[in-house]
Amino acid sequence: MQANCHICRSEGFESLTRVQVSFGNKTIIATLNVLRGNLLENLEAGLSESAWRALGVKEGDKISISHLQPVASMSMVRAKIYGKRLEENGLKAIIEDITLGKYSGVQMAAFITTCSGDNLDIHEISALTKAMVNAGQRLKWDKEIIVDKHCVGGLPGNRTTPIVVPIIAAAGLTIPKTSSRAITSPAGTADTVETMSNISLRLEEIKEVVLKENGCMVWGGAVQLSPADDLLIKIEKALDFDGEGLMIASVLSKKAAAGSTHVVIDIPVGPTAKVRTMVEAHKLKYYFTVVGEVIGLEVEVIITEGDQPVGRGIGPVPEALDVLAVLEQKSHRPKDLEERSLLLAGTILELAKVVPVGKGNIKAKQILQSGSALKKFKAICLAQGGFRRPELSPIRHQMPSEKSGVITTIDNRRLAMIAKLSGAPSDPGAGIILHKKLGDRVKKGDSLFTIFTDTQGELNYTLRYLEEQQDIFQITQVPELSR
Amino acid sequence: MQANCHICRSEGFESLTRVQVSFGNKTIIATLNVLRGNLLENLEAGLSESAWRALGVKEGDKISISHLQPVASMSMVRAKIYGKRLEENGLKAIIEDITLGKYSGVQMAAFITTCSGDNLDIHEISALTKAMVNAGQRLKWDKEIIVDKHCVGGLPGNRTTPIVVPIIAAAGLTIPKTSSRAITSPAGTADTVETMSNISLRLEEIKEVVLKENGCMVWGGAVQLSPADDLLIKIEKALDFDGEGLMIASVLSKKAAAGSTHVVIDIPVGPTAKVRTMVEAHKLKYYFTVVGEVIGLEVEVIITEGDQPVGRGIGPVPEALDVLAVLEQKSHRPKDLEERSLLLAGTILELAKVVPVGKGNIKAKQILQSGSALKKFKAICLAQGGFRRPELSPIRHQMPSEKSGVITTIDNRRLAMIAKLSGAPSDPGAGIILHKKLGDRVKKGDSLFTIFTDTQGELNYTLRYLEEQQDIFQITQVPELSR
Repeated sequence: MQANCHICRSEGFESLTRVQVSFGNKTIIATLNVLRGNLLENLEAGLSESAWRALGVKEGDKISISHLQPVASMSMVRAKIYGKRLEENGLKAIIEDITLGKYSGVQMAAFITTCSGDNLDIHEISALTKAMVNAGQRLKWDKEIIVDKHCVGGLPGNRTTPIVVPIIAAAGLTIPKTSSRAITSPAGTADTVETMSNISLRLEEIKEVVLKENGCMVWGGAVQLSPADDLLIKIEKALDFDGEGLMIASVLSKKAAAGSTHVVIDIPVGPTAKVRTMVEAHKLKYYFTVVGEVIGLEVEVIITEGDQPVGRGIGPVPEALDVLAVLEQKSHRPKDLEERSLLLAGTILELAKVVPVGKGNIKAKQILQSGSALKKFKAICLAQGGFRRPELSPIRHQMPSEKSGVITTIDNRRLAMIAKLSGAPSDPGAGIILHKKLGDRVKKGDSLFTIFTDTQGELNYTLRYLEEQQDIFQITQVPELSR
Repeated sequence: MQANCHICRSEGFESLTRVQVSFGNKTIIATLNVLRGNLLENLEAGLSESAWRALGVKEGDKISISHLQPVASMSMVRAKIYGKRLEENGLKAIIEDITLGKYSGVQMAAFITTCSGDNLDIHEISALTKAMVNAGQRLKWDKEIIVDKHCVGGLPGNRTTPIVVPIIAAAGLTIPKTSSRAITSPAGTADTVETMSNISLRLEEIKEVVLKENGCMVWGGAVQLSPADDLLIKIEKALDFDGEGLMIASVLSKKAAAGSTHVVIDIPVGPTAKVRTMVEAHKLKYYFTVVGEVIGLEVEVIITEGDQPVGRGIGPVPEALDVLAVLEQKSHRPKDLEERSLLLAGTILELAKVVPVGKGNIKAKQILQSGSALKKFKAICLAQGGFRRPELSPIRHQMPSEKSGVITTIDNRRLAMIAKLSGAPSDPGAGIILHKKLGDRVKKGDSLFTIFTDTQGELNYTLRYLEEQQDIFQITQVPELSR
């Protein structure tokens, strides 16, 4: 609005004032910017695109703008910062207010910060999870057992969902899988699946797909299963951290809202993965299991190795190509991605008592090798709106090894950074394809990985970062074998 | 910028991307908004007013825009959230990055949150204070003793500075007092003094005023004594809380930067003051004293009663009128404001050894009663740019008592809220004048206070809030005295 318009003057509105904007029976919370000059007249207001959409206004409509009442539940956040415990009612009020958009970015950042760093106890995490489930939409199913899986991120390329879901669905179990887009990584499962099919389905459409094919692979953000979590995740992305209590609540609230009864959680552990120590992994395992029990979910946690990227691709399309290679049982398929997928699918089959304990892996393998999984994958894609082959970005650059020897460590975090700089996930074809992995022998000049970008600018930007980096691949010299 | 311009597309810029904007040798950090429509052409960018000023650009100048490198010191903030201690180097890096504008609002909110709620130990607070001193400008003086005072906020109307400074300056001591504007209160000392004189002086101007008159009453924000603190305070304002470690660092860093050697700190304690318990007050006293020692300041802390507003006015002009009444020794002057000012001035005179311990109050009183303080006050105002009489806002509304009896409690926080809703501090004439205070006997219908606003809209807004409030003044019925 005009800085000097009647409303700004009488209400004391200035830049960054939080305001309530109403049109008819619709109300949004917004941050005001004021301007001088002649872009707007006195008593005119401009809106952001999301505000236009949310209010459903047309040019010339009359809106009303008022001060935002102080957000009452922020007093609970303050109390938590000052050492008080968050109670069930308090968390309910906070999550409701966040869902209504009453919290500004800095207020959400304060909430996230005080919930991070081991600062929530098991009761608080359980209450937060419940609050998140209750604030969003919920799916209901007419089955006794609904299964789901989740991997605690941090491993680039760990894209098991599009392999596990069709195996499980082909086995006859119901798996209404919702996934997220990348938070701080170069690709989320939703980003990867989106390169092959449509992922933005409404609740009724998801129900149809699942009733028809036993499973789906859709974006959770589109269905508002946990709208407060969706908003918090945006701020967590800007902060580049999320607390473990928030993470557990985020994961389990979405599973509960999707109607799941049995959930397998995969926690990869490694020096550059999200979870770095077994101590931490076991603490998370305990939290997941207990919070699951409180909200009525049977949760099984498996702890896996996380010392290098899974598969060869990092970025939406590069990872989708790995997925297809496994489903199509190509000879060049990444075996590590296949093994992880079979382990998860097998564990789900055992947890849901489809097969006896110890027999899950074999059953999953049969389904994959027989081609049933590929068939089911394409059927699900078709039900979601169609299947298309993913395509890599056009500009390519190979990174050669500077030494000869054996690869002894790979830095996941910096590889993820490179993939992000190259444009992933917003450019789906951008990212990295690895040509060498841990234990591989390389010669000086051998290509370690290829970078894919949409534009030369992004490639230059990525290469500038790479120039400053050393030892993303640690290569240890070994004596040449004599023949 | 245009959402679809070449730069946004190739760099992946979108709404709220943090960017670096350069012109010549000047660089600022900014948050990008993108737009569609024809307000801007491809490759055109619009700037906020502060960006225009900071870059010193003219219409048509060519600026360059690039991605912001990840802020390295945020890893220290994350580590603190996860339980690590902040070390001196870490805090130095954080404060330097904040000073350079590298932190976004949500990142500063995370830093503030993790530093709040008793979460900084004495070493961390000391290191934070040092870092803040070193990141800003510093004043140097050719005197052995430079005194200063500070009141830990929370008491509406507690405007002792414009009374204490002239008393101390008239006594021959040097007191280069910088004050802040309101953070979450209806008036800061700077806001109040600004209704009577100019407060935005540059460092050289401050030096001139102080060399001439021994003291000044200026706005600290204009001189960048602690620029990181100035930025943090804006976010603290949006969050409506500040941690005690941040508060101590904020106060003492500004004193040290102003060149002070001896500082008196006033901590009012009361159920609705900022500090509510004696335990908390004594902890703060300990922190202030120890941190002062570490950075080379002699600090004396006095703990005072804080159970009701000081004086009668709440808001810049209402408080300025109280100040003038005391300086001019009017018969209707608020005695509580006078007593507090004399206590502080006396303590400073004793700490600086101008008078023996126990004689400070008498000396201060002599200076006030003789008219020397008033003369000095006007001389300082003149040196700062002139003296003017403050004027109240034109629209007035009296609030009558609903009962007869004796006033037994007054809610400072809600009175402050009312003054803010009426327009204070941005409308300097707005606020409240109290007609009754603790212990006063009132009859039903007696006026408890008057609200002053610039516009009818603001008055209506304030009255709507008041309708929902009860017992801001608690009035206890007592038997009528028979005559």
